Amino acid sequence: MKWWLTAPPAVDALACEAAMARQRSLAKPPGSLGRLEHAVVALAGQQRRLTPSVDTVAITVFAADHGVARRGVSAYPQEITQAMLRLFATGGAAINVLANRLGASLEVVDVGTCGAPVPGARSARIAPGTADMVEGPAMSVQQTLEALAVGHDSLARTAPGTQLFIAGEMGIGNTTAAAALACALTGAGAGEMTGPGTGLMPEALQHKQNVVAAALRRHELALDDPLALLAALGGLEIAAMTGAYLRAAQLGLPCLVDGYIASVAALLAVRLQPAVRPWLHFAHRSAEPGHHRVLRALDAVPLLELDMRLGEGSGAAVAVPLLQAACALHAQMATIEQLGI
Amino acid sequence: MKWWLTAPPAVDALACEAAMARQRSLAKPPGSLGRLEHAVVALAGQQRRLTPSVDTVAITVFAADHGVARRGVSAYPQEITQAMLRLFATGGAAINVLANRLGASLEVVDVGTCGAPVPGARSARIAPGTADMVEGPAMSVQQTLEALAVGHDSLARTAPGTQLFIAGEMGIGNTTAAAALACALTGAGAGEMTGPGTGLMPEALQHKQNVVAAALRRHELALDDPLALLAALGGLEIAAMTGAYLRAAQLGLPCLVDGYIASVAALLAVRLQPAVRPWLHFAHRSAEPGHHRVLRALDAVPLLELDMRLGEGSGAAVAVPLLQAACALHAQMATIEQLGI
Repeated sequence: MKWWLTAPPAVDALACEAAMARQRSLAKPPGSLGRLEHAVVALAGQQRRLTPSVDTVAITVFAADHGVARRGVSAYPQEITQAMLRLFATGGAAINVLANRLGASLEVVDVGTCGAPVPGARSARIAPGTADMVEGPAMSVQQTLEALAVGHDSLARTAPGTQLFIAGEMGIGNTTAAAALACALTGAGAGEMTGPGTGLMPEALQHKQNVVAAALRRHELALDDPLALLAALGGLEIAAMTGAYLRAAQLGLPCLVDGYIASVAALLAVRLQPAVRPWLHFAHRSAEPGHHRVLRALDAVPLLELDMRLGEGSGAAVAVPLLQAACALHAQMATIEQLGI
Repeated sequence: MKWWLTAPPAVDALACEAAMARQRSLAKPPGSLGRLEHAVVALAGQQRRLTPSVDTVAITVFAADHGVARRGVSAYPQEITQAMLRLFATGGAAINVLANRLGASLEVVDVGTCGAPVPGARSARIAPGTADMVEGPAMSVQQTLEALAVGHDSLARTAPGTQLFIAGEMGIGNTTAAAALACALTGAGAGEMTGPGTGLMPEALQHKQNVVAAALRRHELALDDPLALLAALGGLEIAAMTGAYLRAAQLGLPCLVDGYIASVAALLAVRLQPAVRPWLHFAHRSAEPGHHRVLRALDAVPLLELDMRLGEGSGAAVAVPLLQAACALHAQMATIEQLGI
């Protein structure tokens, strides 16, 4: 019944070793491709082959609304969640442009937005947004499990042969939920974890910090297990991302984690099932100041640091060509032996 | 006669402003694409159009040998320079793999390696490597001007419609020359600027630092003008890269600067002609510890930091998809108005 406790397979240590040996054999000083070498060695272990590739990418964007949004924690009104859902469906958002460039599949899943269903977005609506986490739990335990399952089930729709999975998110108010979760997961204070999100001015940022602190006070007793705090402080799309990472790892599919909210969802997945961690690559350190500490809790060094803070999976999509370059170099470079010296 | 003193054109400030206005109009929080936004605004100014693109990339790798290599400053013997030149010509080096992925043109120019000419590499040989900079000037002033001209002339062979230029280098011993130049250009000491290059062990690194310090002492009087210090401490391929950046800027062609050696060549170009600077993008901060300070002297924040230290233009080639993503997002995203709210 508790599908998320099923341990993902171990990565293939022999394939990692073979890939490391191949890297040492290539016509370059050992280590001179830096972190591209680490990435391709990890992919070799995940894909169980000497020369991995990430040409086939599946992107799933989970969208939902947040009860806490009514407290004025975002620079944007809640209606933007659905407006963006419509934009994903019609192809004009950043993640559409990036998915097109990569030839990646893109599915958008409505896990619970307010308002009418959006044609073109897959409906898996659990509630019209979460409840306000300052007043009570954002989600019931039942809703939380349903949202995890939405993420789980999304993996069944990725095309056979998918080599890399990216989860994205959209949801006005979700950096507030993510900040509260990050505090609970790392022990950091609201001041450290609460950032400007889509662009709050200093005074509004202070208010957002106060809201996060109030939510943490309200739920102090629930913070001892990841599912309970996900229910208390989380979001439907955050829970779905957590479920998606858990399931991708169980299926042996490497994930490229996007920004702040995605990293909080990934940290939840790792806390629920530590064997998820070896299946995660990290795309970028976002402009959100708390991201740094969440990445540290995951022992993760991301590929990029470009001050991006858009969400939607956009930072991960931007980083894919780095992994592709790493794979191409690994597979196609000549060996030192071929240098003939 | 002194072609390098001719000022490059100014970038188009109106195109930059129009691109900034377009960025503000797109369906995302302002600034949320971070440094991708800065990059595309700069490209708009350089290409004098609202929606720039960098789909057509020209890569030129300059190779030469260094007299100082006989002092044991590299982990590799001098013969590797020519072995790599042969590998570039036959397609098995890292830069070949990356150029293929980008559909970029790749020319390899032998500005002065030791040994027989290599078929497939363009011969523009000025000398069989430089002289030992510890004993005297690495190059005569005449040789320095010839090497600058090799870089200048290489730009005439880039295809019409080229949108981005990358210079790469190969030359055993060239991080030693670059370190000496970096010290002279920034005022830093040999200890700060001399790094392990292709992979020196600590004892050999200390020796390399001593060699750099000795070269700096030998030439103390020549450090007051960039051309003189390029002659005293430089390399034929470094001078060619400097000439290439100068000429690319004069032609209004943006450059994506690679790692440590490329950045030193770029700093020389900017010291010779400060109006070159607005034409330069910076790809990555390499693992070479002195790169940090050279980038600071250029007021440059590179796109990537992946601990790469291969040269050949490889770091720049890896970074190109980031600029391409920035251009695609800029050109193809819907506007806030199209969101219909």
